[in-house]
Amino acid sequence: MQDEFVGIVHAVLTATSPGLTVIDLTHHIPPFDVRAGSHALTRSVPYLGHGIVLAVVDPGVGSDRRGVCLQAESSGSGGPQFFVGPDNGLLIAAAELVGGGSIARGVELERSAGDGAATTFDGRDVFAPAAAALCGGVPLEELGSLIDPATLVRLPAPTIERGRLADGRHTLRTEITWVDHFGNLQLAARPADVAAPAYTEAREILTLGSLTVELSPADGSGSQRTLRCVETFADLAPAELGLLQDSNGHLAVVANQASAAQMLTLAAGELVVLTW
Amino acid sequence: MQDEFVGIVHAVLTATSPGLTVIDLTHHIPPFDVRAGSHALTRSVPYLGHGIVLAVVDPGVGSDRRGVCLQAESSGSGGPQFFVGPDNGLLIAAAELVGGGSIARGVELERSAGDGAATTFDGRDVFAPAAAALCGGVPLEELGSLIDPATLVRLPAPTIERGRLADGRHTLRTEITWVDHFGNLQLAARPADVAAPAYTEAREILTLGSLTVELSPADGSGSQRTLRCVETFADLAPAELGLLQDSNGHLAVVANQASAAQMLTLAAGELVVLTW
Amino acid sequence: MQDEFVGIVHAVLTATSPGLTVIDLTHHIPPFDVRAGSHALTRSVPYLGHGIVLAVVDPGVGSDRRGVCLQAESSGSGGPQFFVGPDNGLLIAAAELVGGGSIARGVELERSAGDGAATTFDGRDVFAPAAAALCGGVPLEELGSLIDPATLVRLPAPTIERGRLADGRHTLRTEITWVDHFGNLQLAARPADVAAPAYTEAREILTLGSLTVELSPADGSGSQRTLRCVETFADLAPAELGLLQDSNGHLAVVANQASAAQMLTLAAGELVVLTW
Repeated sequence: MQDEFVGIVHAVLTATSPGLTVIDLTHHIPPFDVRAGSHALTRSVPYLGHGIVLAVVDPGVGSDRRGVCLQAESSGSGGPQFFVGPDNGLLIAAAELVGGGSIARGVELERSAGDGAATTFDGRDVFAPAAAALCGGVPLEELGSLIDPATLVRLPAPTIERGRLADGRHTLRTEITWVDHFGNLQLAARPADVAAPAYTEAREILTLGSLTVELSPADGSGSQRTLRCVETFADLAPAELGLLQDSNGHLAVVANQASAAQMLTLAAGELVVLTW
Repeated sequence: MQDEFVGIVHAVLTATSPGLTVIDLTHHIPPFDVRAGSHALTRSVPYLGHGIVLAVVDPGVGSDRRGVCLQAESSGSGGPQFFVGPDNGLLIAAAELVGGGSIARGVELERSAGDGAATTFDGRDVFAPAAAALCGGVPLEELGSLIDPATLVRLPAPTIERGRLADGRHTLRTEITWVDHFGNLQLAARPADVAAPAYTEAREILTLGSLTVELSPADGSGSQRTLRCVETFADLAPAELGLLQDSNGHLAVVANQASAAQMLTLAAGELVVLTW
Repeated sequence: MQDEFVGIVHAVLTATSPGLTVIDLTHHIPPFDVRAGSHALTRSVPYLGHGIVLAVVDPGVGSDRRGVCLQAESSGSGGPQFFVGPDNGLLIAAAELVGGGSIARGVELERSAGDGAATTFDGRDVFAPAAAALCGGVPLEELGSLIDPATLVRLPAPTIERGRLADGRHTLRTEITWVDHFGNLQLAARPADVAAPAYTEAREILTLGSLTVELSPADGSGSQRTLRCVETFADLAPAELGLLQDSNGHLAVVANQASAAQMLTLAAGELVVLTW
């Protein structure tokens, strides 16, 4: 984050709750990309301890989109309990992941009556004060009026479609959900999506064999590349492309010490088809 | 900040004052741009709690520019009390903002007698030790000799010039003080600069009407764009240009979910003229 | 670091050791560049207080390279005591610098038996838990089996070669070890490398005179530039090239308020020859 926005949010949190530990997960979600933010949060939340998640990716700031605080169902796992941010789909998947699929309660955060300047920086003016209040022991229901979790905005689920070609080969059409800074392409699909009952042989292929990855015809450029399925980067030759289960448990198209994204000119949000 | 400079400053602070909370406001001020640093600090300081500000943008490191620590007049607002950094105009506006327009005291920081290596990294060798000493309760006057605040280096104030055209239209010539990472152009002027007594009608225009923004003739490229005056981003159509009061209370040229800086090819430090 | 990798490592550390102070030295080592990481750590370590260093630059993740924890010889200087990371040369120079040239003990970190997902993110799954355990008082020998420090992987030392031309002039062939974000070129050589007994006159030249820097013939482009030897940036005219002793005690090719790297189109890892 090249501006002082994040530092000011830290300052607001710390001024309200001295001694608070604040962890920055990432400040490099592409501007306005709520989906990328939701994915990053979902990847992170299994590793977060007890506490409060504050997240903002907010193309709708100043509109009538709600600010919310969601309380995850107590999972006994010790993860974060509260999620504060805009009601635009950013928080819900992570909150449900902690809560075993459901959200216990939610409130719509009240905006303090303020001047016009307050309408463009909710991170500082609405979300940080709410998170700091929760840290200080203020009960959730004092932060705003209760809402029905069923009314929360949801993002469409990422594409994971299995199929079969006329020649009997299996296909998996799925979305690139993330390109990390090494250029690894994380896919929405996990090995289990390939290895469902009808796909028993696929599991074997994923572990031992080879797959062919095609670019989705969505962009009309159907060049094919053959990927070796491996367990880790070091199983590939330098700059060789491969498919592995990544550190979040997703399938990922990778290259050893090289950027798969650059080699394939693919980006987050694009669709690829695995065929084997 | 891609280098370890900042981390080393944190290490020096923490080694001296264990348990200290350090907040990073920003490390992405353009190199040597004292003016941009001063603006960022001035924008931030209303949100900072009690504590010490350490700031460095320092093209003059190793020259005879002084290192200083300024104590703000007690404002009762609980903001930062001390400002540590180079005497090149970086600190003074922020310190005066906290102190209600004046600075209580200042000292010139003493350089410890050291080897040549110490002359290029004052953040580590001079400013961090001074800030840590203040945290530890060392009185200001033990950090160096008192100086007259009137001798501090000041940056020229940013341009805010009101005028009137022959046809009766109002003009406001002002400086772009900041382009944030969304591409919003913050102007030096605030709504009050437009709405002064002689400009009563302007206030109305700013709230309800439309303005024409011209590029300054300074660069000879006088293309005009019409901006709608709005309250928030969401009042604009996607990629529509507008003028609003931003989260720091300044006028800002913005676009909804797009970069106004790219659309207008304008940058910080350039002048624009608003005409209405 | 644009991804959430670092934040997750913070989360793992903090969940295990609440209240822990974590300092980020840098997350912008070029991917896979163990050498650059080792240099950055060596530059930083003299300024670190008591504690644990966790460092990862890891092209060999998932291979059979070991994960290690090294204990520095007690130096009485109060620097970091433990170094956790991959056994690929990243840690050893810094650990030896703290320990006065030697390492007291080392263990090979045990991987917990886990699924495939654990093989690509050792920072989260192996190194952070080990560092957190040390913070919590777990003895080193409980983290894995003792190893012989002589078996640790070492990087070759950077090039520092003195010579003499037929015409009697001195030469110093040395490596650019770092280009900082200002574009300063840090060299492996220090003034002492120039000023050894046979080079008494060189010391004088370095302090008062002028040197000629040639690009190494390694790349066949032998253009020459004359550098003034100075004490600090401010001794140079704007954009003038110079040679000084930098804040780490190394020789550095710099320019005043300009990027020497851009002016000379040189990068880290390249060799230069100083001739005088």
